[in-house]
Amino acid sequence: MPDPTRQRNLQRCLLKLGVPETPNLNWALLDQALTHASASSTNYEQLEFLGDAALRLAAAEFLLEAYPQATVGELAAVRSRLVSDHTLADLGDLLGLESYLQVSASASRDVAGRRSRLADAFEAVLGVLYLHDHSLTLIRSWLDTHMARLAEQIRRDPTLQNYKAALQEITQATGGGLPEYRTEEISQIHGDTERFASTVWFQERLWGEGRGASMKQAEQAAARMAYEPLKQALSPGKS
Amino acid sequence: MPDPTRQRNLQRCLLKLGVPETPNLNWALLDQALTHASASSTNYEQLEFLGDAALRLAAAEFLLEAYPQATVGELAAVRSRLVSDHTLADLGDLLGLESYLQVSASASRDVAGRRSRLADAFEAVLGVLYLHDHSLTLIRSWLDTHMARLAEQIRRDPTLQNYKAALQEITQATGGGLPEYRTEEISQIHGDTERFASTVWFQERLWGEGRGASMKQAEQAAARMAYEPLKQALSPGKS
Repeated sequence: MPDPTRQRNLQRCLLKLGVPETPNLNWALLDQALTHASASSTNYEQLEFLGDAALRLAAAEFLLEAYPQATVGELAAVRSRLVSDHTLADLGDLLGLESYLQVSASASRDVAGRRSRLADAFEAVLGVLYLHDHSLTLIRSWLDTHMARLAEQIRRDPTLQNYKAALQEITQATGGGLPEYRTEEISQIHGDTERFASTVWFQERLWGEGRGASMKQAEQAAARMAYEPLKQALSPGKS
Repeated sequence: MPDPTRQRNLQRCLLKLGVPETPNLNWALLDQALTHASASSTNYEQLEFLGDAALRLAAAEFLLEAYPQATVGELAAVRSRLVSDHTLADLGDLLGLESYLQVSASASRDVAGRRSRLADAFEAVLGVLYLHDHSLTLIRSWLDTHMARLAEQIRRDPTLQNYKAALQEITQATGGGLPEYRTEEISQIHGDTERFASTVWFQERLWGEGRGASMKQAEQAAARMAYEPLKQALSPGKS
């Protein structure tokens, strides 16, 4: 068991996140989730592995409930961004998770690693909350509000939707390799919203094309166009 | 509600899988999960999206329980194979899922799509079982036996462990792009277990090398070597 000071600290942390009071929580496990002090404490990596999977399921369930009319392709793209280290570190920052995190002195000097530490700790905490009753109840009771806000934000900004990642997920699942992007600069004008043109290929067939102000935007646009037809083609029984 | 004949059919399907008797299951939803007849019934795609995430969480939880001493890297590599369409189609075949699947005449003529239909249906059924009580209880009650057998099989045969996919997952999560493999034939002797040599690069740094009888084996060996150091490097707060 963590000592009384640490335990009060951990309770404050859950309060800050918005987790309902849970007296019989496994506090020792939560302590491990928030202790990244030494490489020997591998337990938090296991909690992170579990928390990552719990988060993906929570996000899938939330998105299906919130956007019953959206296609699965759209939801997969939103989720990919929603569960990214980037989003988790932002959330960790917003919720002040860092002040509850115990890290070694050498690690705390590593400023560059700060955001990935936050994202990892966030996932590990989700792992502990999942293990409490092997359900997503504790997690969703406070995370839904954040997912609602972030999902809206991601859906409003098309450049935040990660269609490339979503496309990759479906091609990988088939074992057929990765989609390939061919992107070129078609205009020299900086800021031109069609400066780059990209095509996306999979198994020697063209699936989509797109343009954008940056290589990344052009590729995302191409991936967006490719997603639905490629998904149909990879699951031929569907139509 | 499905008609009485179809409902008996669906009950037999669950019996065949080994799901405990669950009279108050949402049979209409299970009917949708196993109906791939027309593109208009998109509901099973949503169930598949949910089932895929439920399966990943079930696999993470099972593997952590079954192999408490294994590194998260090893477990991620085993899971990647365990939840692949390939494995799901095998399981679907073993459990005779196909005879409960309603597909349109045109789709049923598409023999090549058979295995991906099976994998999709399998995931959709898992989605229904998850939704029954929003927990993994119903799923794990019968799937654990299969996961135990398959995980042992995957662990015994290193070529079945998908380190490339596991490596990709961690680099993708950071938004830093994909690892790159450089693979060449170093021996002309067919069957030479070191015929191919591969190195894996990420952000212009070499992370691993490996050899194998095929390009794929060499790349998997390189990815296996790269996994732990790269994971450490991407989460610098850990040591």
